Amino acid sequence: MLEPMTDALTAALAARLPEGVLREITPAYLEEPRSKYPGRDAVLALPGSTEEVAEIVRFAAAHRVGLLPRGGGTGLVGGQVMPDKAPKPILVSLERMRAVRDIHAAENAMVVEAGCVLADVQAAAEQAGRLFPLSLGSEGSARMGGLLSTNAGGVNVLRYGNTRDLVLGIEAVLPDGQVFNGLRRLRKDNTGYDLRHLLIGAEGTLGIITAAALRLYPRPPETGAAVLVVESPDAALRLLNLAQQIAGPGLSAFELISGQGLAFQREMGMDTRQPFEEVPNWAVLIDLGLPQGEAPQEMLEQIFAAGFEEELVSDGVVAQNEAQRQDFWLMREGIPEANRLVGAVASHDISLPLSLVPAFIDTAGVALAELGLRINCFGHLGDGNLHYNVFPPQGEARDAHLHLAAKATRIVHDLVMAHDGSFSAEHGVGRAKVGDLERYGDPAKLWAMRAIKGALDPLGIMNPGAVLRPSC
Amino acid sequence: MLEPMTDALTAALAARLPEGVLREITPAYLEEPRSKYPGRDAVLALPGSTEEVAEIVRFAAAHRVGLLPRGGGTGLVGGQVMPDKAPKPILVSLERMRAVRDIHAAENAMVVEAGCVLADVQAAAEQAGRLFPLSLGSEGSARMGGLLSTNAGGVNVLRYGNTRDLVLGIEAVLPDGQVFNGLRRLRKDNTGYDLRHLLIGAEGTLGIITAAALRLYPRPPETGAAVLVVESPDAALRLLNLAQQIAGPGLSAFELISGQGLAFQREMGMDTRQPFEEVPNWAVLIDLGLPQGEAPQEMLEQIFAAGFEEELVSDGVVAQNEAQRQDFWLMREGIPEANRLVGAVASHDISLPLSLVPAFIDTAGVALAELGLRINCFGHLGDGNLHYNVFPPQGEARDAHLHLAAKATRIVHDLVMAHDGSFSAEHGVGRAKVGDLERYGDPAKLWAMRAIKGALDPLGIMNPGAVLRPSC
Repeated sequence: MLEPMTDALTAALAARLPEGVLREITPAYLEEPRSKYPGRDAVLALPGSTEEVAEIVRFAAAHRVGLLPRGGGTGLVGGQVMPDKAPKPILVSLERMRAVRDIHAAENAMVVEAGCVLADVQAAAEQAGRLFPLSLGSEGSARMGGLLSTNAGGVNVLRYGNTRDLVLGIEAVLPDGQVFNGLRRLRKDNTGYDLRHLLIGAEGTLGIITAAALRLYPRPPETGAAVLVVESPDAALRLLNLAQQIAGPGLSAFELISGQGLAFQREMGMDTRQPFEEVPNWAVLIDLGLPQGEAPQEMLEQIFAAGFEEELVSDGVVAQNEAQRQDFWLMREGIPEANRLVGAVASHDISLPLSLVPAFIDTAGVALAELGLRINCFGHLGDGNLHYNVFPPQGEARDAHLHLAAKATRIVHDLVMAHDGSFSAEHGVGRAKVGDLERYGDPAKLWAMRAIKGALDPLGIMNPGAVLRPSC
Repeated sequence: MLEPMTDALTAALAARLPEGVLREITPAYLEEPRSKYPGRDAVLALPGSTEEVAEIVRFAAAHRVGLLPRGGGTGLVGGQVMPDKAPKPILVSLERMRAVRDIHAAENAMVVEAGCVLADVQAAAEQAGRLFPLSLGSEGSARMGGLLSTNAGGVNVLRYGNTRDLVLGIEAVLPDGQVFNGLRRLRKDNTGYDLRHLLIGAEGTLGIITAAALRLYPRPPETGAAVLVVESPDAALRLLNLAQQIAGPGLSAFELISGQGLAFQREMGMDTRQPFEEVPNWAVLIDLGLPQGEAPQEMLEQIFAAGFEEELVSDGVVAQNEAQRQDFWLMREGIPEANRLVGAVASHDISLPLSLVPAFIDTAGVALAELGLRINCFGHLGDGNLHYNVFPPQGEARDAHLHLAAKATRIVHDLVMAHDGSFSAEHGVGRAKVGDLERYGDPAKLWAMRAIKGALDPLGIMNPGAVLRPSC
């Protein structure tokens, strides 16, 4: 059992740290975006260096106190908030560790601290003439430590991979306070178990990531985008294959948009400059990044024409300039905002084998019909990743339908698993999906996870209750 | 301590398995390509299914017998052979498990068993109109299980990543005989610790990989290659940057070739159709794969011209057809063969941060000069991965210089570490580099590795002595 932080322990910890590391906590630290989890009071620590993080972890280990690591606080599964009944923990926010330690433009690498905000990392890369391709809605506040710990996804996964694929090395404080110096910026390094990949995606339960060596890319000199109207998710999938044949590695993003998402934007009075008079049933946003001298507009016209010929595409617009490309992305990024304004009964972040996406969407639509909810299904089709969210009927209040949330989620997740999918594609497990992991997870994997957790964090102090239920 | 397989135990195991799974062992199973390690006698098991592998592992766990997993036996660090003094183990060769379970061409995914030979996997992908991009010298005999367990590299890492980057999911038997079913073919799946990446590269010390869901790619419709003469490794590195700017993601490989490697081929009478009369000091092989309708030859001419203008390139040949491109690769692949014929005193598989490659090559050349050996330094420059091998002076026998091997290796590895590099880029640790890992490895990482090994394989039966020294 963990011990709570008392006034005496707080004073003892303060004495080991520079002044100002321990602070009065404010309510913002105890919140999360969906306001589903009541944040439990904590002692706030804002370490300014890896050594200070290590000092805090050693203290927590010595006194068996829980540690709650926090990045930008944008996570959607409650990994950053502690339940009420937990013994008072130390909340370790990495926000003061936001140095860009090095940029190696010629190597396409940069070393950043965990507290860096994603948008700042993108900007620093751009200033060096490079691209850090991780890109997602919350990039203005999400911090690298949280993005690494949750292996965040986003819109460019199709081309550049998930967060873990963008990491050459990490520095982390292990649960006993040892510092793992794994910051080497190497493309190949086969010297033992890949601790980097174990800590990435572990959601702070095996250690606190303090810095990372990131992979940069050349900025694609020629970019372009198109929005094409498709008949169905199946047509979208076949169009994806055409686009891959034509654009090869130049295909940066392939996003599925349902008419419901666009209708929500109109319903909420959002001006997202939709390119079509009438809301289509389904559309895709295609984004290209090509080598110097290539012509993205021509290639998009070619994809459009090929899709039209195969009767997959009925209408479409190719962006004529960068401003119009940005408008298309504004429309895409406006979907989660419209969802928030309408108010979801339940949200699901799922992934499926690509070829089963259409069958899943059909089957889930039928299975959910009896609940009488509206479905907005959209997302990163190129990755098989759908955000499958359900909403009250038009004009009705969300609260009147919240009793259906658990049932809807069970239907969706059961069907996802029946289609060999995942109940958490890019958001992680956090505290929201611990039960799902226990229900749907592979038993041997769960056994191995518990064995690893027990070996590296025998006291159970690292983000207790996230991902795995505490064993005692 | 482990127990040896006795006749009684062999009979007991045979009784639990279908006839023919246990076989008389032949010497080929006890060898490795460099003939450095005397293979210890073992009981040979050729399981035909995952369940049979699990049965063997459960038996080994029950009787505390060591297990030696074996793929194609092409590993270069002795991970596949047991030392003489070890208690007689069970050698588990996966060669009978060579089914391609599924090909999902539209999804760019295929599921293969661990015993599949790489060349067969490549061919199956090609037949489905797709590319499985892992490619290396021993692809005609290396098997997927070994390639996964060692996270093999090869010539296409620059573009497609290491083996671990080509894997969507794995199936594996854990050290207690549980089967981990992680074969889902998903691009995004954030549901707990990434057991896949932990087992990949663990060299059979944490379990036996029995199958994998692999990532396929569209075949680049337009390909081309050039060999360009450069002044120095520094010029090669700057040319790499130019090539990346011009070709963007179309750059498939960027290989550094030293004049010594080409001279060895001539010395050994190998006809590798070298495109230059005189052996250059340094050259690079550039390979492109471009989208439909693109012109690789033009792009290579553009890279050539830009390199010439910047005084990085002094001469070069752009392949005029596929046959000439194949010749260039034949020359590149002929380097290890020439090395074998000349006979290396010591071989090193190292990686460095890209920008430090030239400084390392200069410094190492100076440091090794006193030993009077010839150096052949070549490799995957795009990945910072060099094969840095040293040879006796021309006309002298290798044996007369073998006493310098340990000294040369110490000089090379010390300098690699001083340049923030790795002493094993793509070959792994095996048994050859256990001491290097202990000397150069991060202490926190080693602690974590031992903790994980102890938690998942408390009896120490999985490939004992590979990667980590047995604790007892």
